[in-house]
Amino acid sequence: MKQNRARRILEELKKNDISQMLITDPTSIYYLTGVSVMPMERFYGLLLKEDGNHVFFLNNLFTVPKDTGIREVWFSDTDPVTELIAEHLDASSPLGVDKDLRARFLLPLIEKDAASGFFNTSPAVDRVRGIKDEEEREKMRVASAINDRAMAEFRKLIHEGVTEKEVADQMLEIYIGLGADGFSFDPLVAFGANAADPHHAPDGTVLRDGDCVLFDVGCIREHYCSDMTRTFYFRMVSEEHRRIYETVRRANEAAVEKIRPGIPLCELDLTARNLIEEEGYGPYFNHRLGHFIGLGEHEFGDVSSVNEEKAEPGMIFSIEPGIYITGDTGVRIEDLVLVTEDGCEVLNRYSHGLEIIDGGES
Amino acid sequence: MKQNRARRILEELKKNDISQMLITDPTSIYYLTGVSVMPMERFYGLLLKEDGNHVFFLNNLFTVPKDTGIREVWFSDTDPVTELIAEHLDASSPLGVDKDLRARFLLPLIEKDAASGFFNTSPAVDRVRGIKDEEEREKMRVASAINDRAMAEFRKLIHEGVTEKEVADQMLEIYIGLGADGFSFDPLVAFGANAADPHHAPDGTVLRDGDCVLFDVGCIREHYCSDMTRTFYFRMVSEEHRRIYETVRRANEAAVEKIRPGIPLCELDLTARNLIEEEGYGPYFNHRLGHFIGLGEHEFGDVSSVNEEKAEPGMIFSIEPGIYITGDTGVRIEDLVLVTEDGCEVLNRYSHGLEIIDGGES
Repeated sequence: MKQNRARRILEELKKNDISQMLITDPTSIYYLTGVSVMPMERFYGLLLKEDGNHVFFLNNLFTVPKDTGIREVWFSDTDPVTELIAEHLDASSPLGVDKDLRARFLLPLIEKDAASGFFNTSPAVDRVRGIKDEEEREKMRVASAINDRAMAEFRKLIHEGVTEKEVADQMLEIYIGLGADGFSFDPLVAFGANAADPHHAPDGTVLRDGDCVLFDVGCIREHYCSDMTRTFYFRMVSEEHRRIYETVRRANEAAVEKIRPGIPLCELDLTARNLIEEEGYGPYFNHRLGHFIGLGEHEFGDVSSVNEEKAEPGMIFSIEPGIYITGDTGVRIEDLVLVTEDGCEVLNRYSHGLEIIDGGES
Repeated sequence: MKQNRARRILEELKKNDISQMLITDPTSIYYLTGVSVMPMERFYGLLLKEDGNHVFFLNNLFTVPKDTGIREVWFSDTDPVTELIAEHLDASSPLGVDKDLRARFLLPLIEKDAASGFFNTSPAVDRVRGIKDEEEREKMRVASAINDRAMAEFRKLIHEGVTEKEVADQMLEIYIGLGADGFSFDPLVAFGANAADPHHAPDGTVLRDGDCVLFDVGCIREHYCSDMTRTFYFRMVSEEHRRIYETVRRANEAAVEKIRPGIPLCELDLTARNLIEEEGYGPYFNHRLGHFIGLGEHEFGDVSSVNEEKAEPGMIFSIEPGIYITGDTGVRIEDLVLVTEDGCEVLNRYSHGLEIIDGGES
């Protein structure tokens, strides 16, 4: 048990008069225990208790270290799990649950009156996870450094006649070769008009002269995630596309420039959004500026127009403005940033300069 | 909308006097609509209503076909989603929700009294999904045929000095080359004693003479999953290991032999379990015999000692007996089977014969 992390969460819960919380997100459980399990449809939970008598609910099929140092309650696929959980709850007190607790477990606990009330207390966990400690910051730096090197390799995959899918299919091996453990999410590779769809999946589209080439990619290393986007152009770029690119680049850099402890996150979004609006592309920047990241590639917390939360040292989030013109092109430039005591550290070093690739080097 | 599938689910719900159900499992939504979205942390839901006025809840960032043919309610990341949902519910009637509906959406709906009661009605959906129609059966056959061919390729990766991870890292490309769209789950590659851990992740373990080589692998093709396990031996097999292997093989075949409409699924588990117990390995077969599969690699429904449900034509599940001797070896032989009108069709054709690989052919 990482006692310091558990203590910070229990302090957050106490502010809401909650003395017990059932955590079921495997990533949050890893964060607290160092134990990594993929429970799939099975129940997997850590009951945090103010008095320190935490309980770890484990299916016999899970493989965990010999002694987790936490009181373990083991069960099999045929045991009545929610009854077992209820036995360990204080029925006279409210229970915090995390946001992802599924109805199949939550509804029976409510039915049994296993607690005096049920509350989504994920923010307590998420706020603590949102402030990375030194060990985590270092792992995030390493994952992003791999991502920078990978981007330089991915760029070399661009050549005449290649399809999005052919490029995407080579990425995992490159990441593995650079020391990553795998993808943090399926890579997004989009050529030309496909880049205007923020969730386009790589397909058989063939690269054509003048296409933009958008790579939104990330790897995972020692459980921590990277995430970066760069947009290249193939062989030529129209003046309009160059203007779009430079607008996105300036929006990224203007937002990053403003990052320091105390600034409301919505101000960062506003900075990028205003700059894009002034250039006349306001309606084409149709998503938030960024999201938090760490053990998960999308963590709680975002950099959006409605989040008035203030930046704090240890927060790590993406800054990813974009402009998407349906049927034509899409440009996004994304970096991860770590808020420091007096500003921020940009975890990605790959250049923002517009690169026009001629594809002769492959 | 696949009207026939929706109708079957509504009929199941009606048996429990439920006239509205909020489905949030993206796979179930795909099953009903043909629309495929990866919502990640965002809300994504299909409200099925007895009167046919279904509602599709979609985030602006999702990409769906131009006209889904269902009443669409669009929202953005900053909209109050649970209020939007509540507006479309009949507050005076009970609401069915699916088992994976998350606490962050369920608790606010309960808080708002958005329905007269909340019930996990996933079984209604899962029972319908558990009986594959002809279109689905054909896709399952294709996915398993690819898996058979892939197994023959994976077998060739076994040679002196190779590590589990080196083998696992080559599997995706082989699947893609054979026409699969990707893994249905991360491949399990385990050598020797590692095979005794049912959820061992491929690592740097180097193959040694006399090791078993367990491959539990599956691919996805047109949204449908395959899943098969074979266990090989490298260069030699001890008499004890051969006895274990043959026991598992006979357990698999004895269970398959019994499959026909009307047989309780627990009897299949019992058949395999009794055979393994008679050989003295009872305590080493520590999991259920099988699980349902289709659009998901683990679907609701299992072939376990406690499931008295009867086999029906159209069910597809795995038959995967195993024997696991900690610190020594593990053997599992798994096939997918489709229950037919008068027996079953085994979807995997890769041989059950014990193969001792000398690794000279690579």
